[in-house]
Amino acid sequence: MAVAELSPSYKTQLNASRLSFLSTHVPIRRRFDVRPRPRHKRDGIYCSVTSNQIQAPVSIQTEQPNIKSECYGVFCLTYDLKAEEETKSWRKMVTVAVSGAAGMIANHLLFKLASGEVFGPDQPIALKLLGSERSFQALEGVAMELEDSLYPLLREVSIGIDPYDIFQDAEWALLIGAKPRGPGMERADLLDINGQIFAEQGKALNAVASRNVKVIVVGNPCNTNALICLKNAPNIPAKNFHALTRLDENRAKCQLALKAGVFYDKVSNVTIWGNHSTTQVPDFLNARINGLPVKEVIKDHKWLEEEFTEKVQKRGGVLIKKWGRSSAASTAVSIVDAIKSLITPTPKGDWFSSGVYTNGNPYSIAEDVVFSMPCRSEGDGDYELVKDVKFDDYLLTRLNKTMAELLAEKRCTAHLIGEGIAVCDLPEDTMLPGEM
Amino acid sequence: MAVAELSPSYKTQLNASRLSFLSTHVPIRRRFDVRPRPRHKRDGIYCSVTSNQIQAPVSIQTEQPNIKSECYGVFCLTYDLKAEEETKSWRKMVTVAVSGAAGMIANHLLFKLASGEVFGPDQPIALKLLGSERSFQALEGVAMELEDSLYPLLREVSIGIDPYDIFQDAEWALLIGAKPRGPGMERADLLDINGQIFAEQGKALNAVASRNVKVIVVGNPCNTNALICLKNAPNIPAKNFHALTRLDENRAKCQLALKAGVFYDKVSNVTIWGNHSTTQVPDFLNARINGLPVKEVIKDHKWLEEEFTEKVQKRGGVLIKKWGRSSAASTAVSIVDAIKSLITPTPKGDWFSSGVYTNGNPYSIAEDVVFSMPCRSEGDGDYELVKDVKFDDYLLTRLNKTMAELLAEKRCTAHLIGEGIAVCDLPEDTMLPGEM
Repeated sequence: MAVAELSPSYKTQLNASRLSFLSTHVPIRRRFDVRPRPRHKRDGIYCSVTSNQIQAPVSIQTEQPNIKSECYGVFCLTYDLKAEEETKSWRKMVTVAVSGAAGMIANHLLFKLASGEVFGPDQPIALKLLGSERSFQALEGVAMELEDSLYPLLREVSIGIDPYDIFQDAEWALLIGAKPRGPGMERADLLDINGQIFAEQGKALNAVASRNVKVIVVGNPCNTNALICLKNAPNIPAKNFHALTRLDENRAKCQLALKAGVFYDKVSNVTIWGNHSTTQVPDFLNARINGLPVKEVIKDHKWLEEEFTEKVQKRGGVLIKKWGRSSAASTAVSIVDAIKSLITPTPKGDWFSSGVYTNGNPYSIAEDVVFSMPCRSEGDGDYELVKDVKFDDYLLTRLNKTMAELLAEKRCTAHLIGEGIAVCDLPEDTMLPGEM
Repeated sequence: MAVAELSPSYKTQLNASRLSFLSTHVPIRRRFDVRPRPRHKRDGIYCSVTSNQIQAPVSIQTEQPNIKSECYGVFCLTYDLKAEEETKSWRKMVTVAVSGAAGMIANHLLFKLASGEVFGPDQPIALKLLGSERSFQALEGVAMELEDSLYPLLREVSIGIDPYDIFQDAEWALLIGAKPRGPGMERADLLDINGQIFAEQGKALNAVASRNVKVIVVGNPCNTNALICLKNAPNIPAKNFHALTRLDENRAKCQLALKAGVFYDKVSNVTIWGNHSTTQVPDFLNARINGLPVKEVIKDHKWLEEEFTEKVQKRGGVLIKKWGRSSAASTAVSIVDAIKSLITPTPKGDWFSSGVYTNGNPYSIAEDVVFSMPCRSEGDGDYELVKDVKFDDYLLTRLNKTMAELLAEKRCTAHLIGEGIAVCDLPEDTMLPGEM
């Protein structure tokens, strides 16, 4: 029986007793069914890690966690709102799961989601916040601040540490949480540690999320994390998985605008190709400024070829140096942009970048990886790849390099995607400056 | 000559040379005239601080600062956009100054302002960011993240450390910046240190801001800071100054909703009376739930009288304990709410709380202080006090206490408002838990 159906006097007693402690955290009832967990099934995927490849293997959590997900505070009291939603001509509630929900990027993103900035002023929203045991108190703090914000569209907030609970019925999964790289840790170690998290989250999405859930992977290394995630979610279309390269695209647009001496809204058709790493390729061949090819507007081709990419990639590092923190706010903005690009028709003639699954791509990019490419959407949550793009030797050389890196990352995480024993031959450190 | 008027080829050269260093910080030109500074005039106000009252006096900056305010990066290139604004049927640009712009509250607020969430999707905006010499690099970081966010409505960003530059033509001044309370510092010390900042900022607003600038003071102790600010800005209507008590109102609404077992959008007519301190009075006598008096819905009057106020006031402290940080996100949301309440007609029968100047108030509250009271607006930026409110002995006793505190704070800052020598007789520490 939902609380809102109780008689007023009983409700008052109930709440009085529940609210007798200082915190307003009111676990009135569990929101989620506790379903049998398909954790010990491996779905035919080998998880064979050889000790010489992986220096710091992290065991996948197989025990039932102590902290269960639950609705939070005032958001436990929303079940009588169905009728009201009809009178308000609101749309059906959208359920959005966010991992790393106690972190700084989420701290910006969640309030944008709750305010209606992302999904619109007629779209009620349920937020499901995934944290860790360590961050659970912080997660309660986030939920408290969401309560205090009184956002009318925010109708449910649940917090928890188990993806099998939190991803239940999720229509969007924004996967921000990932382990940061510790001192002396190689990219291979990070690939394995975070890969295991994303393998687990893929399995959870596969088991409990909406069959058409859209997944945006932000946690690094995001392309390969997205690949691992989709490989572990065979019942969800691979096309639904994205790795976030939108911040790179936004930064590239800004740098082109600065160089050309125009405002950034004059820059369009910017593709980030490939991996979200230093091998990524910000494409100035196909980009446009005021509708003209960039190379016709920016005559300094040496700058385009030798400085532009570096400016885009070093932006995060410069920012950390100046601001002392990583770019949480603009990362959150770029996640909003990525979502909006999928739920709004793409302006005529333009496109946006997203790291997506390469099968069937028209660019001769290797299949079966997640590679950032130019996309268009009709605003239905789906997208198609843009066909009309040009390549030249400069661009192709760089595409090959970032592709080679993604294939190496894939070999390095073979144990997490059902392709046998991992072999890591990553040649260099390609983490973007300013990212963990 | 504005850069955008230059020929394309010259622009390219100009930008090439300017962009030859790593940072994208492009000081193409000064945006502000350097006017004679009226700093050494005191406008008849004594600034006599006796040494026994003030343990750590801070000298007012009288030298010309080394760092001048300037437009930032891509936002220096917006002067050709007038015509475009007309074609877009945008409104005339609004200029918003924000102090403490490198801090966490502003880090949430600025992106809300820039996105159009606050002033609407047809309102282009200029942001003028005030920081300190110490925080100037962080301020550049904030401006960089605003650049990278590509907000189409954000047409100008200037950063600086001199309020006489930053407040130029400001139509809104959101004064968040204030010194935090150091170890062992009394409220009297804080009143003096921050009072001097707000006296200076009042003078600057008086000299250079729009004649109808709306000022929202967030930095604590915000009521008395607002009073000092308005007293130092005699040419700006005193009615235009607000001290933020909206977060308290929002928290009070949430606690009443939790107690009543209803969603927070059912709670209305909540007034926070008085000072933004532990003497503040969240009013449950006039508040309503589903249109009914709170006391008819929440029968547990003991809870209302003995626990409710404490729950509202301890919220910030609980949050810090859980989350490890102060409530920047929900504070920013409440600033947005405060602005929106002034630019949107107040819903029929409802009101909002704001700390405003008491002259002419209908409640017999002492004149010439800034006191939080119930307000309504027609959405024109102005407000009127609500007349139809009830008082009982419980409420009046508490109103008298918070009023006495504000009068004591006023005596303690007499030197900053032209009323002679300060006398501090503040009886107790009334800072809200979780606030600095």
